[in-house]
Amino acid sequence: MERMKCTLQYDGTFFYGFQVQPEKRTVQQEVEEALQKIHKGQLIRITPSGRTDAGVHAIGQVIHFDSPLRIQEENWKNALCSLLPDDIYVDQVEKVSESFHARYDVKEKEYRYKIYTGKKPDIFRRNYSYQLSRPLNLDRMNEACRFLIGTHDFTSFSSARATVKGDKIRTIYDAGLFQDEDEVIFRVKGNGFLYHMVRIMVGTLIEVGIGKRSPDEIKEIIAGEDRALAGKTAPPQGLYLWKVSYE
Amino acid sequence: MERMKCTLQYDGTFFYGFQVQPEKRTVQQEVEEALQKIHKGQLIRITPSGRTDAGVHAIGQVIHFDSPLRIQEENWKNALCSLLPDDIYVDQVEKVSESFHARYDVKEKEYRYKIYTGKKPDIFRRNYSYQLSRPLNLDRMNEACRFLIGTHDFTSFSSARATVKGDKIRTIYDAGLFQDEDEVIFRVKGNGFLYHMVRIMVGTLIEVGIGKRSPDEIKEIIAGEDRALAGKTAPPQGLYLWKVSYE
Repeated sequence: MERMKCTLQYDGTFFYGFQVQPEKRTVQQEVEEALQKIHKGQLIRITPSGRTDAGVHAIGQVIHFDSPLRIQEENWKNALCSLLPDDIYVDQVEKVSESFHARYDVKEKEYRYKIYTGKKPDIFRRNYSYQLSRPLNLDRMNEACRFLIGTHDFTSFSSARATVKGDKIRTIYDAGLFQDEDEVIFRVKGNGFLYHMVRIMVGTLIEVGIGKRSPDEIKEIIAGEDRALAGKTAPPQGLYLWKVSYE
Repeated sequence: MERMKCTLQYDGTFFYGFQVQPEKRTVQQEVEEALQKIHKGQLIRITPSGRTDAGVHAIGQVIHFDSPLRIQEENWKNALCSLLPDDIYVDQVEKVSESFHARYDVKEKEYRYKIYTGKKPDIFRRNYSYQLSRPLNLDRMNEACRFLIGTHDFTSFSSARATVKGDKIRTIYDAGLFQDEDEVIFRVKGNGFLYHMVRIMVGTLIEVGIGKRSPDEIKEIIAGEDRALAGKTAPPQGLYLWKVSYE
């Protein structure tokens, strides 16, 4: 058996998220069906760095799988790209050691969130950014970001519907916003993220950016360990799993 | 009755073109359904500057319709935007004279065509540009464009399937290409365009840009008045009806 590591891009618009669900189109189902074709009917399971929700995109999702076939990296890439639908792209395939694990070995994840702030709605980006269409104060938002950086209990920034119990302590290495033409982009790096964590951060930061909250409220929100203290969950279509880094 | 002129944007991806067709989702059907709601069930027909095909986008399509209602321009815009699906946007509404006609009064139309030339496919733009993913020689293509400009019989650049008989003489006021990051954009202005004309121009210009044809072949293609002489019809998703101008 050879363990393969793949970097995937996908447009999340027409997927019910990453993980297989009965009767739903998901990224995992599409990739496993392509692998099954390559393996003449044999089911090959894939393991991602983590799931993504419906509507959420990926620029650098990482998965691994084991195959009895001996195929060169470039040929894996071509075979998968030719079998996958046009909203999934295989950017890279590498043979890795048997001990590599796409989820357990993650060292750092980077997410980005695109907020469209142009005056007029841009219908061509409706599925690829959050159409806020109002100005944001980036200085205030960047000030707020400073309180997110570090090791904290992020219960307040975790969906109350989260099914995974236990430890909500995560380390944020970097968080900040920058302007890219008529979009404001939130970039955050950390050792791991709770369910809806980036989207709740964005929803809360937007409230800072429009003047509804002060930047240092973030400190109190974190300390309160209560989801009700933070802002709304921003919609999925602005979110991109940007990069997953390993040792 | 008041005659209203509207400027529409639409993402053509999920439309079977502009014109009403039984059992198909079209732009006309969506706009007429919204107008019918505003008119409490009364059917209001719209007239566009011209049709667009399935997959073709619009930044500045113009339509007109007549209404017995007296509604302010800004309120028309808001009412239509709130009733239309999120892939159509009403950019402008103006009350015009009864003699205005969105098709007959066109003075100039501008189309743009986006060709993605980046090395890797960009799945996020697969419906918004032609993913050629190879370099183009813009100088050669711009040289070829010079032969398109002027008044010519464009039979060679008109779909053989065109149902409209008669005059194929059109005037091209301007045609040229420019680079916009990893996209090459073809911009063409003329007094009118035949069925598939812009897409056949693009297909032919691409053959010039990759060295398969010389720029001055365009002269002979036009003179030959035969569709078989020109290049392939470029796919619809790169095409945008950009602007329609009136007196």
